[in-house]
Amino acid sequence: MRKYKLTIAYDGTRYFGWQIQNERKTIQEEIQQAVKIILKEDIIITASGRTDACVHAIGQVAHFTYSKDFDQKKFLYSLNCLLSEDIKVTEIEEVPISFHARYSATSKIYQYHISLDKIQNPFTRYYSYTPNKDLDLTIMKNAITYFLGTHDFSSFSNKQYSGCAKNKPIKTIFRIDIIENENKIILEFEADGFLYKMVRNIVGTLLDVSSKKISLDSIEKILNAKDRRKASAPAEPQGLFLFKVNYNNLSGMSSNVSK
Amino acid sequence: MRKYKLTIAYDGTRYFGWQIQNERKTIQEEIQQAVKIILKEDIIITASGRTDACVHAIGQVAHFTYSKDFDQKKFLYSLNCLLSEDIKVTEIEEVPISFHARYSATSKIYQYHISLDKIQNPFTRYYSYTPNKDLDLTIMKNAITYFLGTHDFSSFSNKQYSGCAKNKPIKTIFRIDIIENENKIILEFEADGFLYKMVRNIVGTLLDVSSKKISLDSIEKILNAKDRRKASAPAEPQGLFLFKVNYNNLSGMSSNVSK
Repeated sequence: MRKYKLTIAYDGTRYFGWQIQNERKTIQEEIQQAVKIILKEDIIITASGRTDACVHAIGQVAHFTYSKDFDQKKFLYSLNCLLSEDIKVTEIEEVPISFHARYSATSKIYQYHISLDKIQNPFTRYYSYTPNKDLDLTIMKNAITYFLGTHDFSSFSNKQYSGCAKNKPIKTIFRIDIIENENKIILEFEADGFLYKMVRNIVGTLLDVSSKKISLDSIEKILNAKDRRKASAPAEPQGLFLFKVNYNNLSGMSSNVSK
Repeated sequence: MRKYKLTIAYDGTRYFGWQIQNERKTIQEEIQQAVKIILKEDIIITASGRTDACVHAIGQVAHFTYSKDFDQKKFLYSLNCLLSEDIKVTEIEEVPISFHARYSATSKIYQYHISLDKIQNPFTRYYSYTPNKDLDLTIMKNAITYFLGTHDFSSFSNKQYSGCAKNKPIKTIFRIDIIENENKIILEFEADGFLYKMVRNIVGTLLDVSSKKISLDSIEKILNAKDRRKASAPAEPQGLFLFKVNYNNLSGMSSNVSK
């Protein structure tokens, strides 16, 4: 068997997220259908993680296994012809058979785009969130420091965690950068992993603190409570982009078992 | 009567252009319907010029006359609530009664956005054109100089001009700037006016010259021919933005005739 890694960009506006669901249009299903037409085989495409409805990706990563070698350049060209203009596979490479899009990832980077336009901009409405309150960026910068490092993020996950060690809600956020552009700010999160809806829940709380709806020192209490009900509502999905998934040097992995 | 000037941004993707047409969704009709609901009167909104289907505007300007004074801030808020998210009126101001969105304009600025991504970007596909050939920007910069200044642009207009002086095809292009961004170039045109499809026809020719489909010195021949059939096909509409309409200081105009 051989293993292939895909890098995928998509506009999630018209999709019910990455993962296949009955009767609903999903990114995974559209890619699998196109791959099936080209490779004449049912192939499961495994992503680094799900994204929700209306959430976008600039650098989603996925893998699949296939028995044969094929012309990767031709495959990429055909795949992008078959896919809608909402989804483009930007890269393909053969990887060691031990590679796994999710479990081999060393970090993931998400961006949350906030428009500062007073009147919602027709060109960025599907790709950013426009708050209807003024944000204090000095407070936001202070608020961010509470989330850095290793914490139990149960208060910021929409999934409940049992005692099972595999699913523990402890994650490490390496950095949260605020990138200021004209009329826009981008919050860039890098962590070893993210719980379900974690970025949107943190951004929701950051927006409430920055607009002075809740106080700066409430963040520590929310984190310590380990209770989703204590934090703010999640920020809207259209501002969220899965930006990049990082992996260790792939050449260090075990090579293909059979060719 | 009083006169009001509106500045309007719109995503033209889902519209058959500015001007009202039977049975087709247009920007003008949507704005007029919303204004009618607020002011309880049929009001004609006159723009600085039409834009075609799928063409966008960042700073379209339009005017209308109305018998009474009203709260402009409330009007703007209500108007944007009624309009779809594709169209936003960003400014309103009362202007002298002699103001005319089209005839008072001293210059107009159009932008044409070209994506240099090798694979069409899902996030900019409705807001730029992605050529499938490499462009030589040095050639493009040389090609631009042929269009600067005052010319008969008949070869670059999709409308035929009679001998009527009012509609003469002579226009003056003040500047064409190339703004280079990461993976994108923006061609910014400023002129005293533009003929029908003139920007897209010039961009189509610039693309053909820059991709070496036609030679640099053919531009002069095309201009001199005054024949639309000599120039290239128009560039696709989704890359075109009406960026700004300039006017002389409005305070110098004749003031309201009656209030």
